[in-house]
Amino acid sequence: MDQDRLFPADPATRAIARELYAEVRDLPLISPHGHVDPALLADDAPLPDPAALFVAPDHYLTRMLYSQGVSPRRLGVPDRDGRVQAAPREAWRTFCEHWYLFRGTPSRLWLEQSLAAIFGVTQPLGPGTADAVYDELTARIAEPAYRPRALLRRFGIEVLATTDSPLDSLEHHARLAAAPGATDSPHGGPPPPVPPGPRPPVPPRVIPTFRPDPVTDPDRPGWAADVARLGELTGADTGSYAGYLDALARRREDFRRAGATATDHGTPTAQTADLDPADAARLYGRLLRDAARDGPDPDDAELFRAQMLTESARMSVDDGLVMQVHPGALRDHSRYLYANFGPDSGGDIPVPTGYTRALRPLLDRFGDDPRLRLVLFTLDESAYSRELAPLAGLYPAVYLGPAWWFYDSPEGMRRYRELTTETAGFYNTVGFTDDTRAFPSIPVRHDVARRVDCGFLARLVAEHRLPADEAAEVARDLAYRLPKHAYRLDEGGTS
Amino acid sequence: MDQDRLFPADPATRAIARELYAEVRDLPLISPHGHVDPALLADDAPLPDPAALFVAPDHYLTRMLYSQGVSPRRLGVPDRDGRVQAAPREAWRTFCEHWYLFRGTPSRLWLEQSLAAIFGVTQPLGPGTADAVYDELTARIAEPAYRPRALLRRFGIEVLATTDSPLDSLEHHARLAAAPGATDSPHGGPPPPVPPGPRPPVPPRVIPTFRPDPVTDPDRPGWAADVARLGELTGADTGSYAGYLDALARRREDFRRAGATATDHGTPTAQTADLDPADAARLYGRLLRDAARDGPDPDDAELFRAQMLTESARMSVDDGLVMQVHPGALRDHSRYLYANFGPDSGGDIPVPTGYTRALRPLLDRFGDDPRLRLVLFTLDESAYSRELAPLAGLYPAVYLGPAWWFYDSPEGMRRYRELTTETAGFYNTVGFTDDTRAFPSIPVRHDVARRVDCGFLARLVAEHRLPADEAAEVARDLAYRLPKHAYRLDEGGTS
Amino acid sequence: MDQDRLFPADPATRAIARELYAEVRDLPLISPHGHVDPALLADDAPLPDPAALFVAPDHYLTRMLYSQGVSPRRLGVPDRDGRVQAAPREAWRTFCEHWYLFRGTPSRLWLEQSLAAIFGVTQPLGPGTADAVYDELTARIAEPAYRPRALLRRFGIEVLATTDSPLDSLEHHARLAAAPGATDSPHGGPPPPVPPGPRPPVPPRVIPTFRPDPVTDPDRPGWAADVARLGELTGADTGSYAGYLDALARRREDFRRAGATATDHGTPTAQTADLDPADAARLYGRLLRDAARDGPDPDDAELFRAQMLTESARMSVDDGLVMQVHPGALRDHSRYLYANFGPDSGGDIPVPTGYTRALRPLLDRFGDDPRLRLVLFTLDESAYSRELAPLAGLYPAVYLGPAWWFYDSPEGMRRYRELTTETAGFYNTVGFTDDTRAFPSIPVRHDVARRVDCGFLARLVAEHRLPADEAAEVARDLAYRLPKHAYRLDEGGTS
Repeated sequence: MDQDRLFPADPATRAIARELYAEVRDLPLISPHGHVDPALLADDAPLPDPAALFVAPDHYLTRMLYSQGVSPRRLGVPDRDGRVQAAPREAWRTFCEHWYLFRGTPSRLWLEQSLAAIFGVTQPLGPGTADAVYDELTARIAEPAYRPRALLRRFGIEVLATTDSPLDSLEHHARLAAAPGATDSPHGGPPPPVPPGPRPPVPPRVIPTFRPDPVTDPDRPGWAADVARLGELTGADTGSYAGYLDALARRREDFRRAGATATDHGTPTAQTADLDPADAARLYGRLLRDAARDGPDPDDAELFRAQMLTESARMSVDDGLVMQVHPGALRDHSRYLYANFGPDSGGDIPVPTGYTRALRPLLDRFGDDPRLRLVLFTLDESAYSRELAPLAGLYPAVYLGPAWWFYDSPEGMRRYRELTTETAGFYNTVGFTDDTRAFPSIPVRHDVARRVDCGFLARLVAEHRLPADEAAEVARDLAYRLPKHAYRLDEGGTS
Repeated sequence: MDQDRLFPADPATRAIARELYAEVRDLPLISPHGHVDPALLADDAPLPDPAALFVAPDHYLTRMLYSQGVSPRRLGVPDRDGRVQAAPREAWRTFCEHWYLFRGTPSRLWLEQSLAAIFGVTQPLGPGTADAVYDELTARIAEPAYRPRALLRRFGIEVLATTDSPLDSLEHHARLAAAPGATDSPHGGPPPPVPPGPRPPVPPRVIPTFRPDPVTDPDRPGWAADVARLGELTGADTGSYAGYLDALARRREDFRRAGATATDHGTPTAQTADLDPADAARLYGRLLRDAARDGPDPDDAELFRAQMLTESARMSVDDGLVMQVHPGALRDHSRYLYANFGPDSGGDIPVPTGYTRALRPLLDRFGDDPRLRLVLFTLDESAYSRELAPLAGLYPAVYLGPAWWFYDSPEGMRRYRELTTETAGFYNTVGFTDDTRAFPSIPVRHDVARRVDCGFLARLVAEHRLPADEAAEVARDLAYRLPKHAYRLDEGGTS
Repeated sequence: MDQDRLFPADPATRAIARELYAEVRDLPLISPHGHVDPALLADDAPLPDPAALFVAPDHYLTRMLYSQGVSPRRLGVPDRDGRVQAAPREAWRTFCEHWYLFRGTPSRLWLEQSLAAIFGVTQPLGPGTADAVYDELTARIAEPAYRPRALLRRFGIEVLATTDSPLDSLEHHARLAAAPGATDSPHGGPPPPVPPGPRPPVPPRVIPTFRPDPVTDPDRPGWAADVARLGELTGADTGSYAGYLDALARRREDFRRAGATATDHGTPTAQTADLDPADAARLYGRLLRDAARDGPDPDDAELFRAQMLTESARMSVDDGLVMQVHPGALRDHSRYLYANFGPDSGGDIPVPTGYTRALRPLLDRFGDDPRLRLVLFTLDESAYSRELAPLAGLYPAVYLGPAWWFYDSPEGMRRYRELTTETAGFYNTVGFTDDTRAFPSIPVRHDVARRVDCGFLARLVAEHRLPADEAAEVARDLAYRLPKHAYRLDEGGTS
């Protein structure tokens, strides 16, 4: 693991990058958006075997092997019915045999650095070392210092947000919150150093995020049943639109009380709408009726999602929850993966995504209201300089989320800065957030982002476009202050 | 202000860039497209206070502060009714407090370099220096050497084109033209040096540009009234389509006689049409009728704009005016800004913009006619390599305008060259033109472009893709010869 | 010709690029996709005059000069009726006068390097040297060592695929295959060295490619007649859809027996369809009927092309032919060029091209079948990171073709790697293939690609993202092993 990795090659620029990186390398991690299972931390049981820990849940890895004809089954991915067919060691071997596929990808950077920095595994991955690495990891995972809470602390995570169904009981978060210092590791002793490692300043805080898609997207299987369940959970009458909106507001309040500071919305498009309340109510009624028949009319479903984005913005103005929108993926593109492994098995493919026209109804209502914080993400990079940076550089409510998903990578992050900074500046972005599903890769992802941002800033300094002291401040802001501020994590606890 | 700013960091490449830049740094400025008010030069009154000079009229600045919740009112932007609410010094202070927002943006480069090179203000901007800089600028502005015409001369501007309404009286241009040497500064004495500074070879020439949008876009408020006024101005009967076209041709001739060499067209899309004359006449009649009722049908309005682009091309073939098309902005996106500060208050956001299909009707008629010069701009960078460079690299009539608006920036210009040069070469572009509204930033914008182009060329030389002597010729062509030639500024005066 | 051309300027990175390049510079050339006329090699007559050899057939060159007002006629391009109007030497002079237009373009790199490395012409091109270079080339062309087969051998080409009509007699390929060693040069003596030059390991293999567009695109002039001719050639009854499909399958088999390993499909869009067989048969019947009347309904034609892509995929699953799809060009955009020089005279302009939705019907059927190899190309770079890399990184059947046409260039290739590698890796691409029409430029195009890929890999090494030994393996894979494998050229001969 070279200390200069990811820095520009030009020696003078590299030297500047090194200095900037020294400013941010030990800052705590702010992770206000991610997909770690809160039960993992509430239970604090030992992590699973290496294949189940690193390979099976990571779409970046299983997709790449599938693209070369390796069935997810062989990697330990559970079938639709939950059955796992490959033995862990076999799955790991299959993965290691195909390790060369990841040359030039961020997955390689993340996994290599996670293994080396966190698990102390420094031998190169490959068919010849698969068993030895498997054994080494297995031994390490069994140690108390590698329990989830110990790692959470050791990673220097200050805040970790999970992403949760609007129907979630929030019980795991309650368990974590019930005992003071619950997120602190019960497994004592000084944690082994994590080089490079941020130092935890306070006990980590684990909070939920309200992701209402199951009840706001009529195209989701079981939408009407989930809406009914939402009514039961909240005591609101979801038979009417007003009751449905009330139920959503109550659930948001539950989440807010559990520590949430944000909502998250994954929609096929960024389309928003601002319907007359009576029209919206009629649309809702029609969708409920059609759900009981043969499913929603596609235009109705799209219009309802659009309306719900604007309703969510309105609620955010009221309750202060930061609103995140991640549009632009065509879900479950592969019929084979969907049929065999169910939804969310990695077969999502981006589509062209427009923002300027799509967001106008919402922004007409709330874009100029600084109480709203609307964080936008994209899978269509052509929108960065054309639509997203201009919108973030204009509207008080609009913030630009970091390079997301396929673009959470050195080249992707570099393009993101090059395409957005000149129009939106740094201060209409939320800095770096990681969106991680793979818990042990969180610190590494932040490290990659910090290095890439320092490399970008170093180029600005080398080209005399920014003085070094200001670049250092920007580096710290991107790594720590901006995400903390944008997600209202600097505003004290909830009532 | 480091002498190497904006040059690539690699020492060998930087050395080449320095040599190339030495070739172009002192060339006169050709500015055939811009938004300076001709009255400023005709009156030659002292420039206004620093806030009114630098901040209030600059959308790049007011947008960025608005995106962070600072009302344009606090920056001295006039309300819809023309009232300015902030005192100049207060506006300037507010601006300086937020100066950090411009880190990494071209605005920072332009303003810092303008202050240093033109006004001799070298202390860094910020809250702590706001008053001192304000006072220093105020003192400087009061000096005769800082009157508009003195600056025009000192900037080394050879030609400056303004952008004018088709209903403009052209009186300011007449005043400038009436007195020989009128654009020369009446405030004698040797002008202080502008480092780096082009040297004026001849008295500057200030010419108008014909921008017919108010009378060619039926969606503009007051379109029909403006058309009627056009008829009055020209003595043509705009009640008929033939008379309307005749009125346009006559006004173009007025502009041409006043020195204009170009027209400019800002359209929502690049759509063109080539209607049968009878259909076009019917469309025009319908639009005039609907204007008197409840406004145009949107499809009619779009079709009319499309037809008018083709009519303009036809007129350009006749009268030789270079035709510029700037499509792709959704105007007045922010309802708040529009309601409070009126149209053109900075709330324009780009949309995806197609050229290949959209321009075909026009190009079918005139694309192969070298008498037409059609200069295309874009706010959708994805069109550079996909559509614009291929079109410019094919049609005799098509030229590529420089990186525009949000892309008039170091990264934007670099991408422009990288995305267009391999397909269109350098010689189907018009070189650099500045599109400046902020008069004192003109020389700085040219300097940034010259530096960035020299950096790009230096890379070609360093990678042995172009010999150094040819790169030097290209640098000079981009900076001076190409814009002068493309805009027919090397063809002698008008009759 | 500097030995470091196209390598990154940073000395450390350049040193790495040099070492990587040393690994690949002498590897044989795999050219599984191109447009060389097989008669050229079967006849092995001397190459034509310099203008007819280098200028007239090269759209990159004739377009650029046309864009500056130089008629293709003056360059020796034949009129629609086949008449050539410019004398060869005059055409060459006209070309050389405009040589400066190619500064910064790949055409310049290709031609300069072809002239120097293959023809030994090292004086710079230009008006002053036109005649001398013409004479030198003429003398060289007359030598036996410059006959096509001698060059084929000398270029180190291991496999060269041509692109052929489905109605082609394949006679030239038969002549080449009939005599053992037919592709070996009959003009003895050691060939002069080609620096840098791959060394031919085996006699070159020349094979056809099945390009069915004339019979699968109902918008092509003469479609119905071509379909009838297809029936005659195969003895299948193309009056019915089943017979038509059978005829296609039989012709594919003819091509396969003649050595073909691939098909090629040039379509306006990437749209695919998976119609019910009865619907497809009805569509086919309607198109045949309309062809005899006033031409196809546009939607019918698009749907039929879409259906034929899926049928082709189905046939590829059966017969193993690799399927290439090149969508996204609006053909014959310039009315003038089409009217004067006929179809395919260089006036094609790209349009935005979607893949995610368009390919779904085909991929639903065959995307997960590893027997299919579907190689995708694009003229819309915004699709690289948004759609193409995600698709290639997911589906076993999908491969990414190299940077194509306008993007077969240093900047285009660099962007291609930067935009696709992090998502699709290197191993879902087919490495480099050249798509060359200009026979003498083949080795140079491979050399440019090898240099650019080594430069990209060198950056990964310099940034510690890939160890040097793995980068060297990737460089060899991209240059040689991947194209050979993807196109099944490593699977032995055909029966």
